[in-house]
Amino acid sequence: MEDRARTRLAQRIRFLRRCRGWSQEVLAELSGLHRSYIGSVERAERNISLDNIERIAHALGVPIPDLLAEPEGTPPAERGS
Amino acid sequence: MEDRARTRLAQRIRFLRRCRGWSQEVLAELSGLHRSYIGSVERAERNISLDNIERIAHALGVPIPDLLAEPEGTPPAERGS
Repeated sequence: MEDRARTRLAQRIRFLRRCRGWSQEVLAELSGLHRSYIGSVERAERNISLDNIERIAHALGVPIPDLLAEPEGTPPAERGS
Repeated sequence: MEDRARTRLAQRIRFLRRCRGWSQEVLAELSGLHRSYIGSVERAERNISLDNIERIAHALGVPIPDLLAEPEGTPPAERGS
């Protein structure tokens, strides 16, 4: 069960970050988190807390629900790339 | 910043739990968490993890984004009660 939300979040963060042309370092800097932490979140390894989800959403300029929405309407290129 | 997401989540969980006529004990049982943990989440004291957000959403039968949506459209009775 957990893996679904983690995987969805991971894919959305990576997708939105790449849409902005940002490296993990840039997103880390903007969200006040460490680059390796961003990396582990994007690999769905991390049971991230709400406070840090909020930091990342804020850095990306999207509402939190956008990071956790069902994947309908997101382009296939988002996955596994 | 963090308090906004925590507070929104707290209000939504409490609201949806009460809509179902459930005590904190019932929600705790259905989500596999402790009642005192549910209580602390509903008081916005807890920096809850994504895995546990997912457990609670699953128990309430709602998508995760519904727990973190902006409060538009939620009745005022939800607040502070």
